[in-house]
Parts: sequence; C-alpha cells; structure tokens
Amino acid sequence: MEKELEHYFDRLWPICRSISGNGVRESLSILSEIVPLNIHEVPSGTRVLDWTVPKEWNIREAYIITPDGQRIADLQVNNLHIVSYSIPVNASFEWDELAPHLHTLPSMPDAIPYITSYYKEQWGFCLTHKEWESLPREGTYQVVIDSSLEDGHITYGEAIIPGTTHEEIIFSTYICHPSMANNELSGPLTQAFLFKQLAQFKNPKYTYRFIVIPETIGAIICLSNYGNHWKEHLKAGFVITCVGDDSPFQYKRSRRGNALVDRISEHVLHHLAPNALIRDFAPNGSDERQYCSPGFNLPVGSLMRTPYYQHPYYHTSLDNKEFISFKALAETVIMYAKLAEAIELNDYYVNTQPYGEPQLGKRNLYPETISAEFKRDYLDTLLYLINFSDGEHSLLDIAIKRDKPIFDFAEPLRKCMECGLLVRKQ
Amino acid sequence: MEKELEHYFDRLWPICRSISGNGVRESLSILSEIVPLNIHEVPSGTRVLDWTVPKEWNIREAYIITPDGQRIADLQVNNLHIVSYSIPVNASFEWDELAPHLHTLPSMPDAIPYITSYYKEQWGFCLTHKEWESLPREGTYQVVIDSSLEDGHITYGEAIIPGTTHEEIIFSTYICHPSMANNELSGPLTQAFLFKQLAQFKNPKYTYRFIVIPETIGAIICLSNYGNHWKEHLKAGFVITCVGDDSPFQYKRSRRGNALVDRISEHVLHHLAPNALIRDFAPNGSDERQYCSPGFNLPVGSLMRTPYYQHPYYHTSLDNKEFISFKALAETVIMYAKLAEAIELNDYYVNTQPYGEPQLGKRNLYPETISAEFKRDYLDTLLYLINFSDGEHSLLDIAIKRDKPIFDFAEPLRKCMECGLLVRKQ
Amino acid sequence: MEKELEHYFDRLWPICRSISGNGVRESLSILSEIVPLNIHEVPSGTRVLDWTVPKEWNIREAYIITPDGQRIADLQVNNLHIVSYSIPVNASFEWDELAPHLHTLPSMPDAIPYITSYYKEQWGFCLTHKEWESLPREGTYQVVIDSSLEDGHITYGEAIIPGTTHEEIIFSTYICHPSMANNELSGPLTQAFLFKQLAQFKNPKYTYRFIVIPETIGAIICLSNYGNHWKEHLKAGFVITCVGDDSPFQYKRSRRGNALVDRISEHVLHHLAPNALIRDFAPNGSDERQYCSPGFNLPVGSLMRTPYYQHPYYHTSLDNKEFISFKALAETVIMYAKLAEAIELNDYYVNTQPYGEPQLGKRNLYPETISAEFKRDYLDTLLYLINFSDGEHSLLDIAIKRDKPIFDFAEPLRKCMECGLLVRKQ
Repeated sequence: MEKELEHYFDRLWPICRSISGNGVRESLSILSEIVPLNIHEVPSGTRVLDWTVPKEWNIREAYIITPDGQRIADLQVNNLHIVSYSIPVNASFEWDELAPHLHTLPSMPDAIPYITSYYKEQWGFCLTHKEWESLPREGTYQVVIDSSLEDGHITYGEAIIPGTTHEEIIFSTYICHPSMANNELSGPLTQAFLFKQLAQFKNPKYTYRFIVIPETIGAIICLSNYGNHWKEHLKAGFVITCVGDDSPFQYKRSRRGNALVDRISEHVLHHLAPNALIRDFAPNGSDERQYCSPGFNLPVGSLMRTPYYQHPYYHTSLDNKEFISFKALAETVIMYAKLAEAIELNDYYVNTQPYGEPQLGKRNLYPETISAEFKRDYLDTLLYLINFSDGEHSLLDIAIKRDKPIFDFAEPLRKCMECGLLVRKQ
Repeated sequence: MEKELEHYFDRLWPICRSISGNGVRESLSILSEIVPLNIHEVPSGTRVLDWTVPKEWNIREAYIITPDGQRIADLQVNNLHIVSYSIPVNASFEWDELAPHLHTLPSMPDAIPYITSYYKEQWGFCLTHKEWESLPREGTYQVVIDSSLEDGHITYGEAIIPGTTHEEIIFSTYICHPSMANNELSGPLTQAFLFKQLAQFKNPKYTYRFIVIPETIGAIICLSNYGNHWKEHLKAGFVITCVGDDSPFQYKRSRRGNALVDRISEHVLHHLAPNALIRDFAPNGSDERQYCSPGFNLPVGSLMRTPYYQHPYYHTSLDNKEFISFKALAETVIMYAKLAEAIELNDYYVNTQPYGEPQLGKRNLYPETISAEFKRDYLDTLLYLINFSDGEHSLLDIAIKRDKPIFDFAEPLRKCMECGLLVRKQ
Repeated sequence: MEKELEHYFDRLWPICRSISGNGVRESLSILSEIVPLNIHEVPSGTRVLDWTVPKEWNIREAYIITPDGQRIADLQVNNLHIVSYSIPVNASFEWDELAPHLHTLPSMPDAIPYITSYYKEQWGFCLTHKEWESLPREGTYQVVIDSSLEDGHITYGEAIIPGTTHEEIIFSTYICHPSMANNELSGPLTQAFLFKQLAQFKNPKYTYRFIVIPETIGAIICLSNYGNHWKEHLKAGFVITCVGDDSPFQYKRSRRGNALVDRISEHVLHHLAPNALIRDFAPNGSDERQYCSPGFNLPVGSLMRTPYYQHPYYHTSLDNKEFISFKALAETVIMYAKLAEAIELNDYYVNTQPYGEPQLGKRNLYPETISAEFKRDYLDTLLYLINFSDGEHSLLDIAIKRDKPIFDFAEPLRKCMECGLLVRKQ
C-alpha cells in the first residue's frame, strides 16, 4: 500500500487547490481512480444554514517582479506564495504600498506561511522571512495576479458502501489546501485507501459514506443536505486529518464525549496502539466543529497523528513530503479499518439461558479434553460473553470489562449464536 | 484597605463579647460605620426551632485575689480570663474548692484558653498553665464575678444590597467571641469591607444579605425567620470565618457538595489561587452546621484561610493580632468579591444559530486582519462559548471545559449578545 | 478456635469426596457436630435449571500395577490419584494404551494434579511427573478401578439462624474436592465456625442461611429451589472459599459491583484490614458464577485469601495442610462475623429535629463537663450521625463520609434512639 500511497501523493501534491476551482476538480478526478466518487457542484449564492456559497476562485499566474528585475513569490514555484482567494491585480507599487500585502513568519524564517481570505476580498503574497529581509526597500515592484473570482461552484465528492441497514458511518476529509502534506493530503489518501479496505466487508450492517469536501463550507453544505438524516441515523463518524506523520495516534472525542464512536475508538486504541493519546472535544480544529455544532451534536470524532495546532510546521511550506511517512499513513488506513470492524462487531446480545450458568458441555462449548494444564483464557472470554449478555451490556461493554480486544469475542460469539445460546437483542 | 482594616481591628479587639450583651451591641455599632446594619433584638425565652433564646449576660468585673494578695485572672487584663456566661460570685474558697473552676492548657503553658458555658449555669476562670502552677495550694482565695444573667435579648445585625431579583446570596459571620483575631474579628471585618466592594455592582442580578450574628443561636434565629424563604430563593451562601492569617485559602463545600456555590468557588480558586485546598463538608465548624442541617440543606459553603480546628492557637489568647495579616485579610475581601462577580456572570445562554458554526465574519466577530502569526486564544474562547451555549451548559460549565477563568468570557459574551447570536435562557 | 479448627481439618482431610457419594455424606456428618445441618438428597436425573442431576459416584479402590509389580497411583495413598468420576476398570494395558489416561504437571514435577470428568464418562489417573518419568515404557500394566457410577443422589447440607425478618444473608461453601486444604476445607471449616459466632447474635434482623454443597451442581440445585425467593429477599451473600492461607484478604465484588454486600465489605476491610485487595466480579471462580448469573444477578460476593487461580498449588496435592494457617483461618472466621455485624448495624435512620442542629445539651448528648482540652472525636461522630440521618444516607454512607468504622456509630446511635432524636426509617 505504501508505494501506491506515494504514487498518488506525488500526483496530487503540485495542484493548486482552494475551497473552489479547477484544482479541486482535478484532485477529485485523481482520487476517483481509487474510490468511485460522485462529484457534486453547488452554485455560488446557494444558502446553506447560516452561510452563503461563495464565488469560485481560479488562478493561472501570480508573481512579483522586484525593482532589480527578479521574479519572486511565484505561484509556479510554490502555490503557497499566493494568498488564497486573492483578487486580480496587475499594477506597480512602492515598497510601503506593497508591504501590507506581504506575509512572513519571523519565527520560522525558512517557511512560507499559508494564508487565505475567502470571505473578504483582498490580495496578498506569502514568502519566507529570509527572502523578505533581502528585498530592496526602494524602487518599484510589479505585481501580477491573474486570477478570477466569479460566480461558479463549490465542488465535492462522495462515495457509498451500502449496508444492510440505513444506519450510517461517515468518513469526512477535506481537499482545499494547496501543497501541504500532513494537514491535507494525508486525509484524502487515507480515506481513499480505507474505502478499498471496507469494500471487502461481507454484508456490512452499516452504510458507509465517504465525503471529500472543502473544509468548513463543504461540511456546512453536507449538513444542510444530510444533517437531519444523520441526527436519526448516524451511528459514528470520523474527520480524517493530520494522519501522515509517524507520531502516536491521537483520538479527539466527539462533543458527546462518551458516544459509541468515542468508546470504541478508545477501546481499540487501548489494545492496538497503547501509546495513543485521547483528547476531549474542543470546538476548534477541522470539520468536527460543524458536525458537533450544538444543533446537530453528531457522534463524530477524529483519529489523528499530530493534530493541526500541535505540529510546528502547521500551515507552512515545511509541512511537506519529508514531514510524513508512507508507512505511518498505511498503518493509519489499517487502524481506521479496525475501528469500522469493531463497530460492525459490536451489538447487544441476549443469553437465552440466563438462570445459572448454562451447561457448556452438552453444547460442545466446553474445551473437549481434560488436562492438567488447562488454559483458562478462551473459557474466560466465553464466560464473560455469556454472563454479561443480558441485553444491557453491549459487546464493547463486555470487552472493556474483560479488558481484552473486542475482536477476541468474534469466535465464541459465532459459536454461541450457532447453538442458540445467544441471540441478537431486538 | 489594609490600614482601614487595622484601624477597625484595634477598636473592636478590647471589647468583651459573648453571644449576648452590651459588648455585642458596641461591636455592631462600630461595624455600622462601614456597613449600614439594621440591628435586631430577640427577647430571651423566644422559641426558635429546637432552641430557646437564652438569658442576656453582661459582665463588669471579674478577678481572683490570691492568699498572698495578688489580683489574677483579671477581666480587665484579658477578657478570656472569665468563662463566658459565668454567674455572679463574691466569696472565699480554699484551693481544693477553687481548683475545679480553674481551666488551663497544659500543652500550651503560655496560652489562656477560651471557654464558655451558655446553657449550664456555672462559673470559672481561665489562665495560663504557667501561672496556675505558681499559685499557692494553701490559704484562702477571694473570687469576684460581677456579672448579670437575666432576661434580655440576643442582638444581631443585617444589611442588604438589593438585586433585580429576589434570589439571594448571603454572607454570614459571627460576633460573639471576646478578644480573638483569626477566629472572630477576621470574619466581621471581611464581611464589612466586602459590603463596600459589592455595593459597587451595577444592577446586580442577586440580592445580597449580610448577617452578623452570635454563632449557633444567631444562625438558628435567622433560619427560624428566613429558612423557608432561603429553601426557595438562596442561590449561594458563605460562612466567613478564620480568614485572617496568610495561609492558602481553604474552601469547605456545602453539604450538597456540588451546588453552584461549590463549583464556582472551586473554579475561581483553581484559577486565582491555585494552591487553595478544597475540603468536603463536615457537620462541625461554624454556622454551616445550621445552614446545612438536613431540613434546610442550603447551598452554603465557607471560604477560609486556616480553619478553626486546624490552627494551633484556636480558642486561645494566642489567636491575636500577631497571628493574622492585614494584607491577607484584604486579599480575602477581594477573593470573596470575585466569587460574587463570578456568580453574577454565570447563567445559561442559548446560541440562536446552532446548526453548523455561525459565520463569524459577517457579524464582525472574527479577528479582522489576516496574519501569519494568528493568535488562537481569543477565538477559541469565542468558539467554546458559541458551541456549548446550548441551554444545557452554564457559562461556568463552559469555562471549566475550556479550563480558563469564567471572567475571560465576559467580553465575547457581551459581543455575542449584542449581535443576537446568544440570548439568555428563559 | 485454632485447635478446634485443626482437629476438624485432620478428620475431614483423608476422606475421598466428589460432587456425590458417601465421602460427601461422611464429611457433612462430621461438620454437623459444629453446625446443625439439615441434609438433603436430590435424585439423579432431576432437572434443575439448564442442568440434570448426574449419577452418584462411589469408589472403593483404584491403583495401577506396573510391569515390574509395583503398586502406584493408589487411591489409599492419595485420593487425588484417581480422576474423579472415573468409570470401573479391571484390565491390562500396554504403555501406549495407558498413556492417554495418565495426567501429570510437567511444570510442577512433585505435584499430583487434581482432575475431574463429571459429565463425560471416562477414566484416568493423576501422578507426579517425576513418578511418571520413572515408569517403564515396555511391559503390561494392570489397572484396577473399583468404582460405581449409578443412579443415586447429590447430597448437601443447610443450616438456618432465624431472624426477625425474612430478609436473608447466605454463606455458601462447597464440599466436593478430595484432599485439598485451601481450595476446599478452609471453606466448610470457616462456615461452620462462623455459624457458632453468629448464633450468638441477639434478635438478629436477618435470617442467616448456611449452605454446604458440591460446587456448581449444588449451587444450581439451590438456585432452582430458592432463586426466586432470593431475588426478592436476599440482602447479601458470600461464597466462602480459599480462606486458609495467611495472605491478605481479597474481596471479589458481586456482579452488581456496588451492592450493599460490596460496599459494606469494602468499608469493613478498609478499616480492619487495610492491606486487603478489592477485585471486580469476574464470571469465573466458584459458585458466584451461579448466584451472579444474569437471570438471578444476586448480591453475592466472596471474601477470600489467595483465590483459586492465583495460588500456585491450585488443584494439586501441594494444596495441603502446610500451605494453610489455622491462625489465619480463625481470623477469617472473625472477619466474616464482622461483616455480618456491620450489615446488622446498617440501616436508614431519620433525624426527627432536622431544622438547625438539635440542642444536644438538653438531651444529655453533649459532653457534660467543660474543659480546655475538649476531645472532638465522639462529638463529631454524633454530629455526622445527626446531620446525615435524613433518610437518604444509610449508616454505612455516613460512616464512609466520616471515614470511621461503622461500629463506632453503635453507641451514639443507641443514645439518639433512646431519646427519640433518631428513628428507624419506615
């Protein structure tokens, strides 16, 4: 999987994306080779919840010619150089006029910052502080921004794996940042390869929905469409972001704090990634802000590696290919698949012989041979399953009580259901 | 404030107080210079709850003449020398007759203990163990106690700051101990200067009641008057005692344990006095025993410094001016004022745009300028406020979630209310 | 008590017990000298819950003659040599035929393991691994098992101490293992001597039931008889097992986890045996598996020393007299008696003067003499009792709040009830 991930990473990296425009369309087209995305276009001006879909932005060229004739801050060199949604400009400026439009990070002099201005029409360039310091303060600068900001569309993609019920599990990721690795491409890549994993489930109970959207406005659009459906039918959801570096996993809880998505994520990580961190919900970060807004309050968490504000290269040109690991990215895909597997496995089961311990021998559930060195482990898992399947403890609850991974219960569960000792709770 | 506190301390110190009598009246008269007290007189014999108002006690002179003619245990030298409520005596005694009436503290040989006998008629003297050891065991002692114990009154004072509602916050302190500093005068002094602070509140939501009473019987009297009113309308209450030394704050919870008064006190101390201790309720100590009796179970806690039983000089002549600090006393006044301010600020607010995050930019709530070194702190406070203002989380709950002082929310709260994004929950 | 315990231990030790048969009858007869047991006989074939009462097994002789004429694995030498419930055999075998019927513990070469096969008809011998290694692999072995496995009965014993109510406390122990000390005889011996202790209670509130049964099937039989009664009337129950070694106490919680039996056991151990361990319920171990099956879910815990699976000699011949301590056993008896005493003492009491603190002096509840070195301890216990006796806090709750043993409250409780300040909650 690692080689494939890298291949797609390299193709997606150079594209200049924003919350709208052809860069998004091109990126979704590439991802469609892995996951069968339906592409949706939402017109500018559409009212969605408290928001209005903004104009579409496209850019062809942007650069500055210095007084001594050098071409700097060139979009073709690094697409972070342009402030996203910059309006068209073709004019000359003295240094003092130009200066308010130049953005740098004095604390990280080698990094180009990433800046946007979606809802206030202006323009600007980002460059390294080192380069900024070397620029002459006298003479005339020529600024070229060949962009368009016009009525158009917001574009997003969506794929479905149908389940045997309408209860849904969603995986949401965003595609609106230009060339950044952990805080962007790690998300859509994980989501796409996760689709391939989950497509192998046989008769999944849940319907899986994969959403690739521009951050914020995309989530607002989806909530405008599906919000009421999800309030009834969303079993669990995840925002996939910042999953590419090789730091330990961090799970950010949903606003509810103890929803199934939270409890199952903590359980699976406890056993499969014991050094993972668990963090409470905070109404900042990424699209969990939308899914967990108080009117919806959906059970949506986020499994990350090093989250947005914690990684030093956040929103800079240093969040690049060197910062991430394709091995870590592949492990993230597998961990997300285990979370889905655990949610599929979990349910409430009922012991049909709840008075005293059922006689295991006559049902061929007891270890067959007698032996002086009896192994208790399998039998104990079975006994926990039978004793606590009272309709009030989910399989997850039982696994937590036993402090063993929920996956260990799959085999005894199957046997007990075959002989009728356990039935699914109605 | 410190100089003023010391001035009033020095005037109140020498007065011989008990649970009744002219010493109380004189003390209340001095406090009235700071806080506009209404003075109440309750006649002896009045039935109040399970109690009967006792006789009034006044004392003019008390001393012992030793066989060798020395005047000892003289009320004029230290008013702890007389057991409070001692009946009149004018007679001669041999040592063996006198001895049961003399009280000392062998473990603290330089301290005069403080002893009372309000509800059993007897008499006695307290002296240092060192002096007691030096007394001759032979010869005749002359005892003079020029006291009166007769039908009269219990006296207490009360002041009100009216609020816009009848919901009340009470501050209760006691004035019945003779010359002791931490375990008495620190209480009425804090209360009086706190009145001056809170009188500056503009349109306070709550009505503030300040009560200066003799301990136990005074609280019983007030509960007899206001108990039923408070069961309906008491938002929070505090017993002010032992607040004058410079040890860290200790907050003693109300009997309920998680009432608003408890949660707000713990929150404010956590941020403003991180070395403060939090203690569970215990049905001993001071007048919280009465307010938190099971029939009333009022939300009354107590913010102290070194509490009664914990300070070594408790109920002795060593609890004097040297033991306390007027700087600490002034800080106590301010901390109590911050508690009231936090209770005023707290409420349930409701986000009128709960579906998705409201667009902050169009309401001028988003930081105006774009910048590479964006400061998240103010924005996060705002986002917590908006996200959790769902009518189920109080402002206190939100501040606790964010782990920032509730006071930080005052400014964004004001802005959100001005633009109608938040409204007070009805 | 220790000498008596040892005397009965020595008499019970050599008897070959199983879940049925004359060994059980003989053992119950000996125990009847201490506790007045009613003996019950349940016929083979009786249907009990999910189970059927098995045939009765008796054995007279069992041994193997080696090719060189030695008599080994002789029942008369150690009754662990025979697999319990082995069918009759009298035949010759080559080594390869015999080998599957021989059981050893390679990891403990000096120990004879303990093995049973109650519900699958087969035969076998257990021997030390050391002896097994020395046996010749050639030549003919003669096997003699003079047993009978026929319709008969399961036998168990029961004793009652009647209380003033039908609310019950049960002590359940098992008698079905042959010569093992901690994991068998410690249980019935503790139970029998506990009976002697509790028989001294004057007018106990609860009815005490003592059950001596074969493990598993015996508990199933009792639940078949009393299960519905207990669902209504069982106040607390204990499985007594593994209580003879001198390790710290371990209390295993009931399945409910916070039933009275759990809270009172934890409280008493916290004060009387502070190094005790508290463990959550697990659906393995002994007869708590039956009592705490989900259909019954009875409040039954287990106070042990070193439990079954934790002690290295579990189910081997090394679990013998040397492994246990009669001093520890006697202390276990006393600790169980304290648990019963605490449950008897606990109740909900109501303060008849809940408004303000009742005046203690007029009820002679206040310490009579005034003194400078007043001891607060007794008074505080009294104040906690009065303040929290609101009908919502049990005496146990109050003792936990005060962090003092519940036994400390017996005396102030008696005084408060005598003067009518406290009454039992109806």
